[in-house]
Amino acid sequence: MITEEIMRGMLKPKNSDLRTSITQVETNMLKTQGFFQEEIIGNFSFAEMVYLLLKGEKPSENHKKMFEAVLISFCDHGITPPSTQSARLMASAGSPVNVCIAGGILAFGENHAGAIENAMKIFQEGVKISDAYNRSASETARFIIEEYRDQGKKIPGFGHRYHSEDPRARKLLEIAQNCGCNGKHFKIAIEMEKLLLKDKGIKINIDGANAAILSDMKFNWHLGCGIFAIGRIPGLLAHITEEILNEDPFRKITELKSTV
Amino acid sequence: MITEEIMRGMLKPKNSDLRTSITQVETNMLKTQGFFQEEIIGNFSFAEMVYLLLKGEKPSENHKKMFEAVLISFCDHGITPPSTQSARLMASAGSPVNVCIAGGILAFGENHAGAIENAMKIFQEGVKISDAYNRSASETARFIIEEYRDQGKKIPGFGHRYHSEDPRARKLLEIAQNCGCNGKHFKIAIEMEKLLLKDKGIKINIDGANAAILSDMKFNWHLGCGIFAIGRIPGLLAHITEEILNEDPFRKITELKSTV
Amino acid sequence: MITEEIMRGMLKPKNSDLRTSITQVETNMLKTQGFFQEEIIGNFSFAEMVYLLLKGEKPSENHKKMFEAVLISFCDHGITPPSTQSARLMASAGSPVNVCIAGGILAFGENHAGAIENAMKIFQEGVKISDAYNRSASETARFIIEEYRDQGKKIPGFGHRYHSEDPRARKLLEIAQNCGCNGKHFKIAIEMEKLLLKDKGIKINIDGANAAILSDMKFNWHLGCGIFAIGRIPGLLAHITEEILNEDPFRKITELKSTV
Amino acid sequence: MITEEIMRGMLKPKNSDLRTSITQVETNMLKTQGFFQEEIIGNFSFAEMVYLLLKGEKPSENHKKMFEAVLISFCDHGITPPSTQSARLMASAGSPVNVCIAGGILAFGENHAGAIENAMKIFQEGVKISDAYNRSASETARFIIEEYRDQGKKIPGFGHRYHSEDPRARKLLEIAQNCGCNGKHFKIAIEMEKLLLKDKGIKINIDGANAAILSDMKFNWHLGCGIFAIGRIPGLLAHITEEILNEDPFRKITELKSTV
Repeated sequence: MITEEIMRGMLKPKNSDLRTSITQVETNMLKTQGFFQEEIIGNFSFAEMVYLLLKGEKPSENHKKMFEAVLISFCDHGITPPSTQSARLMASAGSPVNVCIAGGILAFGENHAGAIENAMKIFQEGVKISDAYNRSASETARFIIEEYRDQGKKIPGFGHRYHSEDPRARKLLEIAQNCGCNGKHFKIAIEMEKLLLKDKGIKINIDGANAAILSDMKFNWHLGCGIFAIGRIPGLLAHITEEILNEDPFRKITELKSTV
Repeated sequence: MITEEIMRGMLKPKNSDLRTSITQVETNMLKTQGFFQEEIIGNFSFAEMVYLLLKGEKPSENHKKMFEAVLISFCDHGITPPSTQSARLMASAGSPVNVCIAGGILAFGENHAGAIENAMKIFQEGVKISDAYNRSASETARFIIEEYRDQGKKIPGFGHRYHSEDPRARKLLEIAQNCGCNGKHFKIAIEMEKLLLKDKGIKINIDGANAAILSDMKFNWHLGCGIFAIGRIPGLLAHITEEILNEDPFRKITELKSTV
Repeated sequence: MITEEIMRGMLKPKNSDLRTSITQVETNMLKTQGFFQEEIIGNFSFAEMVYLLLKGEKPSENHKKMFEAVLISFCDHGITPPSTQSARLMASAGSPVNVCIAGGILAFGENHAGAIENAMKIFQEGVKISDAYNRSASETARFIIEEYRDQGKKIPGFGHRYHSEDPRARKLLEIAQNCGCNGKHFKIAIEMEKLLLKDKGIKINIDGANAAILSDMKFNWHLGCGIFAIGRIPGLLAHITEEILNEDPFRKITELKSTV
Repeated sequence: MITEEIMRGMLKPKNSDLRTSITQVETNMLKTQGFFQEEIIGNFSFAEMVYLLLKGEKPSENHKKMFEAVLISFCDHGITPPSTQSARLMASAGSPVNVCIAGGILAFGENHAGAIENAMKIFQEGVKISDAYNRSASETARFIIEEYRDQGKKIPGFGHRYHSEDPRARKLLEIAQNCGCNGKHFKIAIEMEKLLLKDKGIKINIDGANAAILSDMKFNWHLGCGIFAIGRIPGLLAHITEEILNEDPFRKITELKSTV
């Protein structure tokens, strides 16, 4: 039974304060992940700063080079993604720029930007299995694909609705090899691609390539969609500005097609 | 009177298609601002890519260096901004990561991140006045401040509720001078700071410094809040991840303080 | 100059607590605007509850009838509004239902749902002018229209891009007359419509009708867009559910139309 | 292998148009779920209109009474929910009203408003099991609880972090009995409460009560969170307006508590 005492305990929050170890703020002093901000500004590249924020440490030269490429690879896919369309609709309706950006991000649903997180989970799970049971990358790849086939589920990170061979994915894999970001996750991804190409004629896409690479860089899968967002938002902003400056406001984007 | 004919004309949209000149998408081909994406990936820094998307051209060496610094300067301000608090509240409530990011961006209201756009407008307007009437930067600065004083309005870009001397602003101004981004807008900003320091004891803040610099780099003021967003989102993501991984879910952040 | 003392004062927040007088929450007790919630549930209509929340008092019979009509009038406009399109795009992308609703609301931009607040401001300002200078509704209407014409601005609340005679507006005005919600604001709106019909062939629209009625019911104009949202969200939810249950996920809503 | 032909097929969208059967829009004519809007306005209550939109038919008298109560029951819970806190933070930051509402809705995360959908799924699954295996409500309740216990998962819809006996839930159950909305789902919920009260001292909460009732009214579980949103948004709007009109803008809601 819930007594008065228990209830009072429930009502007394234990960790009710917002707190952080990311940035220490004092009067005229800002220290992020141990660095004074004025020492970072002018000395880091923006991608290095993003890495520092998310991993808590400065990247190595190889990781820096790789991470610049990862972020760039997400930049833009023209007018086709629902996120871009949503952001432009809001811009056309006269919403403020930050609202249009947020609106675009809200359209990163399960079917659009969910793939990268899910692919990271698969590769990270795959490496665990591979290590625990001493299986080769090729065996692990086959095991994962069969499991998905049995459950009738689509494997995230492979195939693209517009591209049979995604030029971005190919380039990323090449850089990963040059930067030593082609570890265990990368190898499983490549083996999966071989099998899927043979079975279904599909290749690794940008989400799959980045998921393997980010996993080999030891990023937590929780960060997958967020890193995609960091890379894509500049593109969204370019679209929003194009809509504001070059198109009629509140234009009728969709014609009347309602049916009784 | 509205005739059938006029009505039909109103109903026929003239530019009803979503279209863009930012990225050309064809099967296995992505070309952004004239560059094949696979040629950008691995060759540009992420900040250069952002610049290319927003301005349509690759930055000069000086502009590149400056823009890396500008983006970094927005990175994080600990737990104090409403955007960070909103994003963490949503993370605590169990919302997906992209939703938490969007939630943070929605809290960039007039009182929080509105300053940079408004400061850009002021400096850009100031340069027009200065050019048209052949006034010095110092005369223009005095004119702007007096106008705001007469209207009883707060001047955006100066003063900070936590810092009397913002270490980020000082560093940015220094880099601007080294990179030749200290043109007409910069000079007006500096003159305004002199006057405001004497009158009110306040100095230029990070929004003011970036507004002057971005204006000298010829960025449209419509981009002000968006560039702030690009710089701040990595910090928001760091906070969201910290909340998810290190704090209890759905914790009682605010104690009961309701009154009848 | 900013001394240590001033700085400390700046850093000490005066009203840093979230607090409310809307609902008193205690263990096993919820009291909203002075009523125990369990006494409202089952005794009020939903529209009466909305009224109680927003105005702090139960509506009269007339105000109740009027407010039910106002909320209903905003219900849905098919597939044409940017808010509906955004919400469906997000649903198609696989975003959760609450995210799709939020996305729809974010598309209530200046050009889409901004009209009702602006029309409320105009009518409320008009009544002030009319009272202060002892002008008739007709004189005030002419004054407002001329002011807008001189500034080259569009008058919110009149004309519709799909309807020459909005059936919802006509019905609302009729109910307002029956419910005694046809006071000073209503009269100015009607006079404005007469002039605009003669000059431009346009009639009052749903935003204009509701703006006049809500003003006569003494709602603050700050509530205009919010009341629209309350009325429209059920329609957005219907669209989101239709998209989830009846359409293919992640369908290509916009064809490739990008240009170099 | 993907041939040119297959590729072209992939690129040709099959259902690329936004379309709806909810509302038919023609010039000067709006017909929703088969009713002309001008016939609904003034004749339906707002809750009836919501029901019509979501179910495609007018409610019976009993369903109408029940649905008014359901929507009201979600109205407000003071300052404690993350959604309310987020909405107020955004209002304090100076974001527009629609943005603050959207921000509140985005904080309806898994841990906050997810319970109602999940409880609907459980009860609807429970009724299927009960029908298929001819089990009593009490047997089904025990089966569900044991399954959750075995998986170490929290059962949604029971227990409340502030209330041991939620006054709203009790009142709703009473009305459900009077309105004949106490069918199979209701009975399973009541049996689950009996067991959970004995085992853990927790009772059914507002989410559980509404989940059972809405399921007996034959609402699809996809609508759970959306119906909660419809009921809660008026409360969010009341909070947003209170923040705008009664509090200092951009106040420091959280004190500096960051740590290195």
